[in-house]
Amino acid sequence: MPASKKTESARVVILLGSKSDLPVIEGMYPLLERFGIRHEVHVASAHRQPEKLKRIIRNTEKAGAEIFIAAAGMAAHLPGVVASMTAKPVIGIPVAAGPLAGVDALLSIVQMPPGVPVATVAIGGAGARNAACLAARMLALGDKKVAEALDAYIKELARGGK
Amino acid sequence: MPASKKTESARVVILLGSKSDLPVIEGMYPLLERFGIRHEVHVASAHRQPEKLKRIIRNTEKAGAEIFIAAAGMAAHLPGVVASMTAKPVIGIPVAAGPLAGVDALLSIVQMPPGVPVATVAIGGAGARNAACLAARMLALGDKKVAEALDAYIKELARGGK
Amino acid sequence: MPASKKTESARVVILLGSKSDLPVIEGMYPLLERFGIRHEVHVASAHRQPEKLKRIIRNTEKAGAEIFIAAAGMAAHLPGVVASMTAKPVIGIPVAAGPLAGVDALLSIVQMPPGVPVATVAIGGAGARNAACLAARMLALGDKKVAEALDAYIKELARGGK
Amino acid sequence: MPASKKTESARVVILLGSKSDLPVIEGMYPLLERFGIRHEVHVASAHRQPEKLKRIIRNTEKAGAEIFIAAAGMAAHLPGVVASMTAKPVIGIPVAAGPLAGVDALLSIVQMPPGVPVATVAIGGAGARNAACLAARMLALGDKKVAEALDAYIKELARGGK
Amino acid sequence: MPASKKTESARVVILLGSKSDLPVIEGMYPLLERFGIRHEVHVASAHRQPEKLKRIIRNTEKAGAEIFIAAAGMAAHLPGVVASMTAKPVIGIPVAAGPLAGVDALLSIVQMPPGVPVATVAIGGAGARNAACLAARMLALGDKKVAEALDAYIKELARGGK
Amino acid sequence: MPASKKTESARVVILLGSKSDLPVIEGMYPLLERFGIRHEVHVASAHRQPEKLKRIIRNTEKAGAEIFIAAAGMAAHLPGVVASMTAKPVIGIPVAAGPLAGVDALLSIVQMPPGVPVATVAIGGAGARNAACLAARMLALGDKKVAEALDAYIKELARGGK
Amino acid sequence: MPASKKTESARVVILLGSKSDLPVIEGMYPLLERFGIRHEVHVASAHRQPEKLKRIIRNTEKAGAEIFIAAAGMAAHLPGVVASMTAKPVIGIPVAAGPLAGVDALLSIVQMPPGVPVATVAIGGAGARNAACLAARMLALGDKKVAEALDAYIKELARGGK
Amino acid sequence: MPASKKTESARVVILLGSKSDLPVIEGMYPLLERFGIRHEVHVASAHRQPEKLKRIIRNTEKAGAEIFIAAAGMAAHLPGVVASMTAKPVIGIPVAAGPLAGVDALLSIVQMPPGVPVATVAIGGAGARNAACLAARMLALGDKKVAEALDAYIKELARGGK
Repeated sequence: MPASKKTESARVVILLGSKSDLPVIEGMYPLLERFGIRHEVHVASAHRQPEKLKRIIRNTEKAGAEIFIAAAGMAAHLPGVVASMTAKPVIGIPVAAGPLAGVDALLSIVQMPPGVPVATVAIGGAGARNAACLAARMLALGDKKVAEALDAYIKELARGGK
Repeated sequence: MPASKKTESARVVILLGSKSDLPVIEGMYPLLERFGIRHEVHVASAHRQPEKLKRIIRNTEKAGAEIFIAAAGMAAHLPGVVASMTAKPVIGIPVAAGPLAGVDALLSIVQMPPGVPVATVAIGGAGARNAACLAARMLALGDKKVAEALDAYIKELARGGK
Repeated sequence: MPASKKTESARVVILLGSKSDLPVIEGMYPLLERFGIRHEVHVASAHRQPEKLKRIIRNTEKAGAEIFIAAAGMAAHLPGVVASMTAKPVIGIPVAAGPLAGVDALLSIVQMPPGVPVATVAIGGAGARNAACLAARMLALGDKKVAEALDAYIKELARGGK
Repeated sequence: MPASKKTESARVVILLGSKSDLPVIEGMYPLLERFGIRHEVHVASAHRQPEKLKRIIRNTEKAGAEIFIAAAGMAAHLPGVVASMTAKPVIGIPVAAGPLAGVDALLSIVQMPPGVPVATVAIGGAGARNAACLAARMLALGDKKVAEALDAYIKELARGGK
Repeated sequence: MPASKKTESARVVILLGSKSDLPVIEGMYPLLERFGIRHEVHVASAHRQPEKLKRIIRNTEKAGAEIFIAAAGMAAHLPGVVASMTAKPVIGIPVAAGPLAGVDALLSIVQMPPGVPVATVAIGGAGARNAACLAARMLALGDKKVAEALDAYIKELARGGK
Repeated sequence: MPASKKTESARVVILLGSKSDLPVIEGMYPLLERFGIRHEVHVASAHRQPEKLKRIIRNTEKAGAEIFIAAAGMAAHLPGVVASMTAKPVIGIPVAAGPLAGVDALLSIVQMPPGVPVATVAIGGAGARNAACLAARMLALGDKKVAEALDAYIKELARGGK
Repeated sequence: MPASKKTESARVVILLGSKSDLPVIEGMYPLLERFGIRHEVHVASAHRQPEKLKRIIRNTEKAGAEIFIAAAGMAAHLPGVVASMTAKPVIGIPVAAGPLAGVDALLSIVQMPPGVPVATVAIGGAGARNAACLAARMLALGDKKVAEALDAYIKELARGGK
Repeated sequence: MPASKKTESARVVILLGSKSDLPVIEGMYPLLERFGIRHEVHVASAHRQPEKLKRIIRNTEKAGAEIFIAAAGMAAHLPGVVASMTAKPVIGIPVAAGPLAGVDALLSIVQMPPGVPVATVAIGGAGARNAACLAARMLALGDKKVAEALDAYIKELARGGK
């Protein structure tokens, strides 16, 4: 893959089941940027648009995607379905949509059966920010720049930063 | 499709996410037989074997399947994924697998987002038997024999039968 | 039954336990109309007006009703009571009334004992829309026009429509 | 109504949705007997046998029944349906049947909408015994013998009895 | 007890753990008045004012109180404590105070151990109105006027009234 | 109070709502003995034996009791009622009795309203052992021997002991 | 330690996981002041600032701190981590942050394993006020002035004060 | 670090809060071995042995540890505390210890606040196996051999293997 292309392609691909979930992940962008992690967002329903979803995963993986982050509410199948379509790590964010405050989404994401893991984080915006931190921890294993940015962030948190 | 083949093919296709869920649906067979509804059972994981699942649905639908019943535990995506692969009615049975007593499966099945409905019944064996009754109610709309068998069953229940 | 009358009578009868539940089912109408399914709405309490309820079910069934959809909150007995008064398929929508966010209604509807099934969908408006989709899937088994409208809807969803 | 008949007829009528709930109410009998309250038990499903249920309530009320106690599990509609068929006080006992430990039955019984009250007691055998105590408290309002037996029982409890 | 005094004293005594629970029981008054049931309200904390509570119960019982209704939120001990201070029927209303939506109050009231029953109704205002209906059902056992008012109310509900 | 008597009287008084809760607190004794804290156990129901309970609290307080530990299941009012009868610290242990696994007891104990605090620990035997540790932490504030025994215990835990 | 310094140092140290939790504990200050208990507040995250937290605990303990109160939301580890850093009594206040209404915080605080107890109080502001009352009960064991102030407060509550 | 040492040191370090959690993770070993991932297990309590825990993390990280997996029950702080001691990815497994079936552990692990992420998997043995799969997905990003073993495993699952 030529360097120029690599610069442009996303390492982290964020998938939403619905446009209405966009505000939930807003806090994720500044963190990913701070860690120097290229990312892009796609909206695709696991149930209504399985073919579109499969295409996005195939194309972004070819272009260099290393981690998928999927956010969904209610019977939140998206993260698990993504995990069944790729062998890359998948992070799942339960969204508090509807009257059950995200408990439905949390259980639909975290209780995945053996063989198809989803790395689940907290419900809502707090989880979205931690999804970015978790992606940084994974990429830092093989990328010194991300590791350094992550260390700087952790030190800032220790000084009381947010 | 030749009539002879239609006579032999299943009208109700039962799908399980795992062989370990087979005991849960045992109470379903005598009811389907009593209603005179041909049926068959397949085991296919929504996540580990999506291609196999799609193939089963395509083939059984071609052969005349009218209703799908899917039982699964934990983050029970199977019924919803089946509903995304067919336009036929899909009945979902939450299985009480693992420590959460089926609450995880219930929410993963019933809280489906608009457009991809799953007709959810009770957790476990009680739900399995009602899945058979619900399938009979659907098929009775266009089949007098099923309607008569269903009426006879309801009258027997009214006399204290089970 | 004369054709003219059949054209006017409802195929899907929607029952509410209380007028206050009317906003919950609003999203159901455009879907039923799009699928070309005649429908009508009645308000009748399962507990306070059991005789009225029985009369509505008897009359609408005689006039051609094929599916009943019942929405109720709190100890939501309406869908189960309707299912005990008819052999047609009954779809239940849990309404998030009162402080328990619809969990009480969900369990009162979905945990029906064997023999009297209720096809339960999600809590609230999302469930109401899926009740319409589920009714369309059932009627499409014996009605090509509904089947075609349903297929068109599913394809629109796949293109990102709602 | 002749006095002789009144002596023999039940003042408290216990209704069960299923024979399998009989062990749950065993602890109720010695208490009712100790309070000198005539009682009888009937098994009738609210959904499968609504006509039988209505007949039992009508006949026992005519014969002098003053209080109804109804025990049921899962989507426990029986107590609420009984309360819609009589103007006498109805006591509801949630039964822990199935995987949800009686939470489904508790919410299906206690969350009754305004106008049709059910006096709900604890889940299972503890609730059954309290249903007997509650019936005694109600009947003691107009019956000195029951009041005295109740007082003796309460004093025995205070001395450490059970 | 002279008739004149009896006319003035309350038959139903309503107890609140805190003044802040007053709005919850507002819907109870018009019902009690319609049933012709004299009532009065007292605020007394089971924990902070046990002596005051005992005094209210003793005095109102002497003056003719037949039923106690107690409403409380959080760890709602008031109804159970009242039931331990009187042999009259006690009705408990769980109040949705604090973040747990009344689930804490519901369990603290309904799960009473054997011997000290509380007739529990729904959480919040719906439960308060049913507490009035339940009290009417109890008093109607020995009071024809209440029985007639209750019948009229039930008939009005059947005509669609509230 | 003569010193000799003080030596023999209990500093920690353990109260149980029922004899059946005795096995839950077994793990508490070796810890209290190890910390050198004199203790005694009484069984008294908050609802059935309020006078006995008050007497125990009054007498043990006079004899030198400094801390009360109360364990109860279901609608566990005992710890809160004890806290309303004394100004000493009260520790509450929720017992997992009945089908709700102690969730009812936990909420009935921890959700106490302002002014009457109960120091709540974990459900069941783990909580009982921590009640002993918590009592030791409180008494260590004014007793060097308990403080030293507590330090030795914490060091043993750090070395992997239990 | 010189007396002058002791007068100024805090006996109760309040720890918050985040500045956003400050409004939750507001009701605690007037109570601590009324009981004459010197206190101070620190903000330190158990996870992001473990070293800062350890330093605060060590320094305040040296200066005379006798009790720690820790409030936190979500996966509320702060109270348990504080209890692992000191042998003084630790009171934990679950904060209702995020969509789970404080149930996550409650379970993360109260379900501590044996050996490291946290005295847990109610979720939110009610719990914060009870944390102050509980601290007063503990300090009253060895301090007559606090005991007298506590008694006066309890008497005021009995007269209907708050 | 010399290659020879690297060959022997663990890439995945598994941490347990208690020896009693060992059976929960048994299903993890064959998977890690199949993926060719060196691993080692340590038992260390986050609360009782924080210094031991810190030492294990520091030493294993120096020796080449890339991922930490932590399993704990009840108020399961271990995974979050580990995540606060390292910048490597941390996977958390909730253990179903005690009466709450692991719900307490799940919420204590998944609801971590922003900045300190824990990749949470399902409760119990199913989660343990997925922790191994998730670790493999992370390491496969930078290790072709693991990627190939993972692909082979996923293909075997698709053929119906477990």
